[in-house]
Amino acid sequence: MGDRVVEIKKGLEDVFVLETKISSIDGIKGILEYRGFNIHDLLHLSYDAVSYLLIHGKIPDEKEISAYSHQLKKDRGIPEEMIRVLHTCNFNIEAMDALRTEVSYMAHCDPDMNDNSYDGNIRKGTRLISKFPTIVAAFHRIRNNQEIVAPDPHLSHGANFLYMLRGTRPGELEAELIEADFILSAEHELNTSTFSTRVTASTLSDLHSAIISGLSTLKGPLHGGARMAVMEMLDEISVPEHAEEHVLNLISNKQRVMGFGHRVYKTYDPRAKISKELAKKIAEEKHEQKWYEIAQNIENTVNRELVEKRGKPIYPNVDFYAAVIYRYLEITPQLATSVFAIGRVSGWIAHILEQYADNRLIRPRAKFVR
Amino acid sequence: MGDRVVEIKKGLEDVFVLETKISSIDGIKGILEYRGFNIHDLLHLSYDAVSYLLIHGKIPDEKEISAYSHQLKKDRGIPEEMIRVLHTCNFNIEAMDALRTEVSYMAHCDPDMNDNSYDGNIRKGTRLISKFPTIVAAFHRIRNNQEIVAPDPHLSHGANFLYMLRGTRPGELEAELIEADFILSAEHELNTSTFSTRVTASTLSDLHSAIISGLSTLKGPLHGGARMAVMEMLDEISVPEHAEEHVLNLISNKQRVMGFGHRVYKTYDPRAKISKELAKKIAEEKHEQKWYEIAQNIENTVNRELVEKRGKPIYPNVDFYAAVIYRYLEITPQLATSVFAIGRVSGWIAHILEQYADNRLIRPRAKFVR
Repeated sequence: MGDRVVEIKKGLEDVFVLETKISSIDGIKGILEYRGFNIHDLLHLSYDAVSYLLIHGKIPDEKEISAYSHQLKKDRGIPEEMIRVLHTCNFNIEAMDALRTEVSYMAHCDPDMNDNSYDGNIRKGTRLISKFPTIVAAFHRIRNNQEIVAPDPHLSHGANFLYMLRGTRPGELEAELIEADFILSAEHELNTSTFSTRVTASTLSDLHSAIISGLSTLKGPLHGGARMAVMEMLDEISVPEHAEEHVLNLISNKQRVMGFGHRVYKTYDPRAKISKELAKKIAEEKHEQKWYEIAQNIENTVNRELVEKRGKPIYPNVDFYAAVIYRYLEITPQLATSVFAIGRVSGWIAHILEQYADNRLIRPRAKFVR
Repeated sequence: MGDRVVEIKKGLEDVFVLETKISSIDGIKGILEYRGFNIHDLLHLSYDAVSYLLIHGKIPDEKEISAYSHQLKKDRGIPEEMIRVLHTCNFNIEAMDALRTEVSYMAHCDPDMNDNSYDGNIRKGTRLISKFPTIVAAFHRIRNNQEIVAPDPHLSHGANFLYMLRGTRPGELEAELIEADFILSAEHELNTSTFSTRVTASTLSDLHSAIISGLSTLKGPLHGGARMAVMEMLDEISVPEHAEEHVLNLISNKQRVMGFGHRVYKTYDPRAKISKELAKKIAEEKHEQKWYEIAQNIENTVNRELVEKRGKPIYPNVDFYAAVIYRYLEITPQLATSVFAIGRVSGWIAHILEQYADNRLIRPRAKFVR
């Protein structure tokens, strides 16, 4: 056994495991499309509409978006027993652990628990999208000994999250930024967490279980966890003048500069480009250039040292400027990955439904070596 | 985008994604080895020793197994707050959902929560192996309004589980059967749940998160969930004389006969062969041939109708006779998949540690189609 010559596809790099209608990445030109629409054009829509597009495959008309948004707003609250579970969580943990536990518990409370039909899954999925922001905000406030803030149905998905998190209604630009962040985080083809939701779904396990695999996977520092790591780096640097030295130290110690590099993009990540512009805008509006300047100095140093001097193509990825935006929005590092999850859950649901619709068990092989 | 001609590896069938030292399957000859040892030979060891072999790569000597077993026994108890979480679970759910939620919560309580070193992971892993049986038994008894039974350090891993579950110490043959079931369930190369633990670990997410992905994936009816489905089929048939008709109906309706067929084995699953003998043994000892006869009749009908008449190679897999054994051990269908997980967790831990030791992010591609 194990003596057969086989090719090992380590990391499954460039292995195409399925066909999808949900999104496409052109890693050479730096283009990301959801359902055939360039993400630049989708920023004019609400997160609700983009979520509808991902899951249902079309941009909703007025009647459709009105019904969908109404349902999302209606589902925002979380029952008393879910709040109790949040109270039992260890308050020193990353919010991702609390979110993962709460979503696992939420499966027990879902009225469609035993309904794995398409319609049942759509109802369960809508509840997950609705409740993710409420869970993340509630855990944050409970841990900080603050009263939980009830959702405001007059606010958009993003604005309502900031309101529940911080207790005051966000400014117009803040609301625009968080909504854009959710849209840019919503979907990215077979990234590792999305792939893991499809692996789980391929055993015909239920929707909640597949989402929980996604959360478990997103948490890693080589994936969504990078946002937290970038925020921590910004904190550590703390003044723009120290950024260059910090990066030079990382490079000379052969350590990773968090928030740079991507398996698929060989050019500037189109999401990072948008986030960078938005970060600049809010830095100006808040008259607080510091975090944006630190980020700029990091990027310039990486560019000079790695791209120009060594010809190594490495660019900021989606997590880098998202982390800068989170700083300005008063989102703490411990929340960063779960805020990413609030956006990503729509993409996960779309992929899980696509997997169920044309399923083949995902079961690769390993080569035995002594 | 998406116009490039690429080969789609749907289901990753026969794609080798990594090298492993943990196990090997010869699907043609029907041989399964853990770390180079044939499973037939491993049945003479305790589950503790097999678990040690999987994780540490060698059969433990007397001193090593004594220390390891001592630690496993010491860790069996679960704290009051974990019992409280089990009480909040919906009692109508499958035990897998409760186990998944409890393991997610358990991460919050682990003293090594923030230690992702090899040693920290070994301590966390040992606790997971120890506590899985306690969680499954405690949830079962709470749901049935029975007092929780404290673990007995004089009993083996398997015997202690049956004791905590049923409240009385099991007979010798019963203890042998559950221990064998845990050993046979412990490891099986890159089955879908094990693959999912490695996908999660490849983002450098933590051990508990990776195990939770495994649980989420094992639950599916095309994977561990098949045990529950087989048990339900046995119940539905209920008398040996009805088995043939039941199977003929399934076949003529083009429905799946649960517990048959495997992606890798093109012959009789060696685990099923062993379980079948054990099932026969306990049927005789208990003077209750019924469940064994139903299983025999199912297998004979499948064999006659599919293998002989249509030349389709299809054999019972590990879940089929495991389900029969669970019947004799008074394990209910709703518990079946989580009992599988009690065995499998050792293999998961071994694979997660192997992934961490030589990591490459698992990130495949999807081909965009309109």
